[in-house]
Amino acid sequence: MTTNFYAPPSAFRAGRVVLPDDEARHLRTVLRGEEGDEMTVVDGEGGWYRARIDHVGAEQVVGTVVEQREEVGEPPVEVTVALGLLKKRSRFETFVEKAVELGVRRIVPLQTQWTERDSIREERLRKVMVAAMKQCRRSRLPDLAGPQSIEDVLAVSDGEMRLVCHPGDESVPIQQAVNVKGAGSVESVLVLVGPEGGFSAAEEEEMISAKCTAVSMGARRLRAETAGIAALNTVIMAQNR
Amino acid sequence: MTTNFYAPPSAFRAGRVVLPDDEARHLRTVLRGEEGDEMTVVDGEGGWYRARIDHVGAEQVVGTVVEQREEVGEPPVEVTVALGLLKKRSRFETFVEKAVELGVRRIVPLQTQWTERDSIREERLRKVMVAAMKQCRRSRLPDLAGPQSIEDVLAVSDGEMRLVCHPGDESVPIQQAVNVKGAGSVESVLVLVGPEGGFSAAEEEEMISAKCTAVSMGARRLRAETAGIAALNTVIMAQNR
Repeated sequence: MTTNFYAPPSAFRAGRVVLPDDEARHLRTVLRGEEGDEMTVVDGEGGWYRARIDHVGAEQVVGTVVEQREEVGEPPVEVTVALGLLKKRSRFETFVEKAVELGVRRIVPLQTQWTERDSIREERLRKVMVAAMKQCRRSRLPDLAGPQSIEDVLAVSDGEMRLVCHPGDESVPIQQAVNVKGAGSVESVLVLVGPEGGFSAAEEEEMISAKCTAVSMGARRLRAETAGIAALNTVIMAQNR
Repeated sequence: MTTNFYAPPSAFRAGRVVLPDDEARHLRTVLRGEEGDEMTVVDGEGGWYRARIDHVGAEQVVGTVVEQREEVGEPPVEVTVALGLLKKRSRFETFVEKAVELGVRRIVPLQTQWTERDSIREERLRKVMVAAMKQCRRSRLPDLAGPQSIEDVLAVSDGEMRLVCHPGDESVPIQQAVNVKGAGSVESVLVLVGPEGGFSAAEEEEMISAKCTAVSMGARRLRAETAGIAALNTVIMAQNR
């Protein structure tokens, strides 16, 4: 049994882990886990555990940790992607799933001049994220922020490299920006992507003043969520050498 | 009116273009195009046209070409992605849409030892592809092959660089494979990605014997369609400098 389970740090105490209800149910009813089996559990904060199942009860599943590792499946760079709130929620969900798999550290739904929504389905997105985290065998559950303005994101972000996806002649190809600035060595990157209609001119200026580099994603005009996925992948891959 | 329309090469004759029925309807009823307006039309084979609308009738829309360009929005490298047929058709569709946007030239649904399907919804995928081609403003409609075996793909492909996505210690990071082998200069690349369960050991051997390089996509185990998207993006971006 190699499937990953998710249990927050509070579920671990004195070398034992108690699986949360939904994970315990999955182990019992779908995977048919039994006492003596081994399981892999991640705590969503970089902790990875191999545990032996001691007890499979109607109420709970308890295991003993036999091996502990840190930052399993995590990339060496912390990437935040701020993506404009999209009209179609399913497209934002696709982005969230792919971003978790590709190694994002923080996702910020952006409220901009041209977004036509102001909310996310937090509960649902969180489920998508937990599933993707387990699926791809990483040990951190990325942060999902509430909707924020560009100003908020720029004020909080400590991204050493700040990129804003912007089709246009003044933009630098993202691959070039990432190589020249040495994404292979920076520790944190912030990527901003507008909603379907892009950013307004005033927003572009605001970001450029805040030391963002305008980058182009190539000769095709990508959908917002595709641009987010492609930019994240390009930054992460720069360190996958 | 800057929206793209799609009309196959046969729709162009003597400097005029006649839009296909569904595109003509879209122009009339949704975009409210009128005589004298300009429109952009691509022929799906690299031809890009700016045309003046001469006639908007109940039966057809006719325009006169005023500018013609070639290979608008097309990348300098021809990438074929062969992706295992997935259990969930919606995931294969997501792949197809993103692949067209990112610049794929040919998509091959792969039938392997561990695929659990043997068909695609060709009509539906074609619609997704046409919509994505127009959306991202490229001028070529990528080829969509029928389901093929690995043997078929390897026999037909003239890919100068052949990559097979394979998580494992023997694999080279894809970014490294692409840089070392100079994806920045090759003209054609073949990328093979297995279905949910991956390739069998025998299939791996078959591909390695056929000069495929096993590449890893990083420290996380990506879903099949995510691996296809990420590998394609990495190859295309290597030329976006």
